[in-house]
Amino acid sequence: MTFLEDFSPQHLTLTVESPTFWRVTFNNPPINVVGLEMLSELKALLTELENNNTVNVVLFDSADPDFFIAHYDVEIDNDAAEALPSPTGYTAWVDITVRMSKLNAVTIAAIRGITRGAGSELVLAMDMRFASLEKARLAQVEIALNAVTGGGASGRLPSLVGRGRTMEILLGGEDFDGALAERYGYVNRAIPDAEFEDFVDAFAKRVAGWDHQAIVEVKEFVNKYSRLPDAEYPLHSDAYWAAVSQPEVGNIVGRLIGHGMQQRTPLEYNLGRDIAAIAQSER
Amino acid sequence: MTFLEDFSPQHLTLTVESPTFWRVTFNNPPINVVGLEMLSELKALLTELENNNTVNVVLFDSADPDFFIAHYDVEIDNDAAEALPSPTGYTAWVDITVRMSKLNAVTIAAIRGITRGAGSELVLAMDMRFASLEKARLAQVEIALNAVTGGGASGRLPSLVGRGRTMEILLGGEDFDGALAERYGYVNRAIPDAEFEDFVDAFAKRVAGWDHQAIVEVKEFVNKYSRLPDAEYPLHSDAYWAAVSQPEVGNIVGRLIGHGMQQRTPLEYNLGRDIAAIAQSER
Amino acid sequence: MTFLEDFSPQHLTLTVESPTFWRVTFNNPPINVVGLEMLSELKALLTELENNNTVNVVLFDSADPDFFIAHYDVEIDNDAAEALPSPTGYTAWVDITVRMSKLNAVTIAAIRGITRGAGSELVLAMDMRFASLEKARLAQVEIALNAVTGGGASGRLPSLVGRGRTMEILLGGEDFDGALAERYGYVNRAIPDAEFEDFVDAFAKRVAGWDHQAIVEVKEFVNKYSRLPDAEYPLHSDAYWAAVSQPEVGNIVGRLIGHGMQQRTPLEYNLGRDIAAIAQSER
Repeated sequence: MTFLEDFSPQHLTLTVESPTFWRVTFNNPPINVVGLEMLSELKALLTELENNNTVNVVLFDSADPDFFIAHYDVEIDNDAAEALPSPTGYTAWVDITVRMSKLNAVTIAAIRGITRGAGSELVLAMDMRFASLEKARLAQVEIALNAVTGGGASGRLPSLVGRGRTMEILLGGEDFDGALAERYGYVNRAIPDAEFEDFVDAFAKRVAGWDHQAIVEVKEFVNKYSRLPDAEYPLHSDAYWAAVSQPEVGNIVGRLIGHGMQQRTPLEYNLGRDIAAIAQSER
Repeated sequence: MTFLEDFSPQHLTLTVESPTFWRVTFNNPPINVVGLEMLSELKALLTELENNNTVNVVLFDSADPDFFIAHYDVEIDNDAAEALPSPTGYTAWVDITVRMSKLNAVTIAAIRGITRGAGSELVLAMDMRFASLEKARLAQVEIALNAVTGGGASGRLPSLVGRGRTMEILLGGEDFDGALAERYGYVNRAIPDAEFEDFVDAFAKRVAGWDHQAIVEVKEFVNKYSRLPDAEYPLHSDAYWAAVSQPEVGNIVGRLIGHGMQQRTPLEYNLGRDIAAIAQSER
Repeated sequence: MTFLEDFSPQHLTLTVESPTFWRVTFNNPPINVVGLEMLSELKALLTELENNNTVNVVLFDSADPDFFIAHYDVEIDNDAAEALPSPTGYTAWVDITVRMSKLNAVTIAAIRGITRGAGSELVLAMDMRFASLEKARLAQVEIALNAVTGGGASGRLPSLVGRGRTMEILLGGEDFDGALAERYGYVNRAIPDAEFEDFVDAFAKRVAGWDHQAIVEVKEFVNKYSRLPDAEYPLHSDAYWAAVSQPEVGNIVGRLIGHGMQQRTPLEYNLGRDIAAIAQSER
């Protein structure tokens, strides 16, 4: 049985647009959090792509027009997540982001909707990011949980946006809309939403038509000059988990859930703005 | 006696907005040059911040709406400057910029007005730079003194603006207004002046409310991936001082002073444009 | 006999604007390809500049308003090209781009018209790039020949435009107009064409007036922090030549020539768009 016959994900959809062009559509209602099943399905997809010599392009989009990926599931069963296979030996989210960042296939994020925390880290681990001008919003909100980003944002942002803007993104914890994300280099480009799908699909199809080996070699050189060593990333994860295991962070998360976190609520829409008041309310 | 009771600076103002948010306002008329007393006061401030585990944010602004920091005092008593305590062992300006670049507190430049030479280097050593769209102007004019930048601009600009724009900034010696500085990444963002204070204050207050240890850890990771080794910076200083000790540079400085340098004159307002004609007039 | 008396290039023009400011104008009709003679003339120019302690600025422009440099001559006599003197010991194009990237003189590209493939690599090896807002178009189209870029684009783009945009430029193979090239950092700035010549000439003249030794020292520091080791570049060349020596690439080039490549044809004007359909037509 081939991977495609066997792979029946429930929290994302795999569409084989052509033998060289796959589309992965996140679909984990109500707001596309990265939960246990999505971790498992992403890991299976990565394993296949690591062993596949045909796929040139994987385009990642979302079934939800408002949420690309909201963030990591703050109520995830961590023991179960860490019990999933980890070929790198790293924690679950680092295993995924590190492997994503060095596939042979070209990975493209088509960002429409909210993309915060682990969602932002996942697109940062991809090769390119295109954003809907009107609908994309990106943020790293981990500072509100007293934590560094656990999946490598502090390692990947400097080579994209420079030192000063990395500091602002990570220490401000605020939303970046499509236009500002482009000005900073957080995304490649922001495209007017009316043209967004056509633009991204045309780009992906063009790249899907090139010679596979040429793509592999281009990516090897660019990776050589623009990726940190893998061994940096577990350091981030260790610091993140040490921070969020503190009781105060549990209290913050509790307050956030009380205000509607993980649900399709005004808080999740406005998390980049509102998280500070909630996180800082007992200081 | 605490630092706050003891610290009575004359060339800058320290305002304790809250225990976690300090504001430093440069105030050295007529045009905010970096003179001996400001060096001494900055060093005292840095020593306190290096030993303080409470302050999350230091926001640097200027009491002069037209000059953030004009440049280094070209008539400074160098022997006295270099006799000030230097914990790093480096020359006075390198000691300040290197220490500034690795504080635990988040350092934010609120740039309104002219910021050239050492002024530009000081904001480059901070974590972030916000600029007034209409009123900010940044430049590195050291090339007009036959010199490299002595306080590290050539080491800090590449990670912010890339190789080509670094070359242009350092070899052109021209002014960059707020809009162009943002397009280049020289500053994080240019904000319309009418909104500038509110924007910067709100950002600083937000960051001031986060957990101190989380800020420290975020900065450690970003610094690890975006700072040069300290030992690079004395090389810049050595090259700078070797260049400006040449008699020809003394002549250039003499002509500049004759045209109004260090005073609130048209030359200082238009230095980025006019310095070339004066510096090159006897070539 | 001096270099200037002896140097009589046929495929570019050298204009001595002043002892410190040289202008090199590419002029190889019909579309400014990099052919055997241009390689030879560029190598002679580089040798002179490596031994010249006077020239501060070399401004590169084009005699053709539509083509800055179209690309490498795909019908070049490779044996003859590789038999030209190579002080670095590298292949012809790597010898030129590596040497260009570390001259003492400031190298400025004044990009008006189409600049693809080796043309883009040549300007990437210069210190700065200014582009006509309306008339510049840059691209790296080597992926359409199943190849990595052979002259170092994958080594130079990351420090200019970041990882994600480097991936897009190299893996998309599409044109970047002046405005987009500026937004990405592919060029320093895009200047409205009506002001372009005045802007670039004024900038070059200003830099030409500075102290030569100061320029050399500034460039040394910036190069130290923003150039890859020379030894990376032959790796790109090896991979490029291995790829394009495959019979399939010969077929692609044959089809491109059949459609008008190397001539002043619609294909050359629209190569960034049309190369994909032709290259991918037999897949």
